[in-house]
Amino acid sequence: MDNTFVIRPIGIVRSPVLSRVDENWGKIEAEIHLQSTWAAALTGLSEFSHAIILTWLHQASFDYNRDLVRRPRGQAKWPEVGIFAQRAKNRPNPIGLSVVDILSCNENILKVRQLDAIDGTPVIDIKPYYTAFDRIETVVEPAWVHEVMADYF
Amino acid sequence: MDNTFVIRPIGIVRSPVLSRVDENWGKIEAEIHLQSTWAAALTGLSEFSHAIILTWLHQASFDYNRDLVRRPRGQAKWPEVGIFAQRAKNRPNPIGLSVVDILSCNENILKVRQLDAIDGTPVIDIKPYYTAFDRIETVVEPAWVHEVMADYF
Repeated sequence: MDNTFVIRPIGIVRSPVLSRVDENWGKIEAEIHLQSTWAAALTGLSEFSHAIILTWLHQASFDYNRDLVRRPRGQAKWPEVGIFAQRAKNRPNPIGLSVVDILSCNENILKVRQLDAIDGTPVIDIKPYYTAFDRIETVVEPAWVHEVMADYF
Repeated sequence: MDNTFVIRPIGIVRSPVLSRVDENWGKIEAEIHLQSTWAAALTGLSEFSHAIILTWLHQASFDYNRDLVRRPRGQAKWPEVGIFAQRAKNRPNPIGLSVVDILSCNENILKVRQLDAIDGTPVIDIKPYYTAFDRIETVVEPAWVHEVMADYF
């Protein structure tokens, strides 16, 4: 458990969003520019409607005392929850996960909608969205999640 | 883009599945044993029905020539698709993503169902499953996906 692992970015986010925000990602269209060596790895992705993008949240910073257990967005109206029970950016391993609409896929450029990552964010993996894996029909989640999400998209 | 990032495991999978398989994960119950320093980070997770587990697929090995574009499970009946258009384990960054049912959460141990990771797999992040982020109502995917998935769960 003492070992560490090395991640190499496969590409970068190109987005009109240049700095961190917490809402209104729904209509944002962004591009993922893969390193040219990975272009062929997108073969067939355009047959899917959605993908999961894993990013490295390069501007996040996890502070154990501040972030291990905190109120979502620091708001007193929401309960204290652990970092593994929320989607906040400051995580032990700063990996972002975004389910996006695939708009187009040409050469090494994947165009998507709803990617909540700012311009310049490194991309570390792309996976197609599989209904059988990823779509849960009956989800239970605490009430605060709905309130947090109300203005996100 | 030449930089690399360092991942530190937060815990480990304890599962009755000891070696790699490609099917029948649906009824498997497994535990995630977090390092004790992360126990509080699970606070509130038991209010969710599902979580997303990110793992480090420590037994996978990506070979550019073999894995960049390949037929799912090597079967001639399925088309050649890029690694970013499939969920195969041998990926440029070997990060596994599993949506699981949460069964219980006590101290530093999270018990789950449908975690398709073998015993000993390092865990690198846990995120709660949010309907608004993660559940896509209308998904389009190629026909081979349904065939590949038929015996997975």
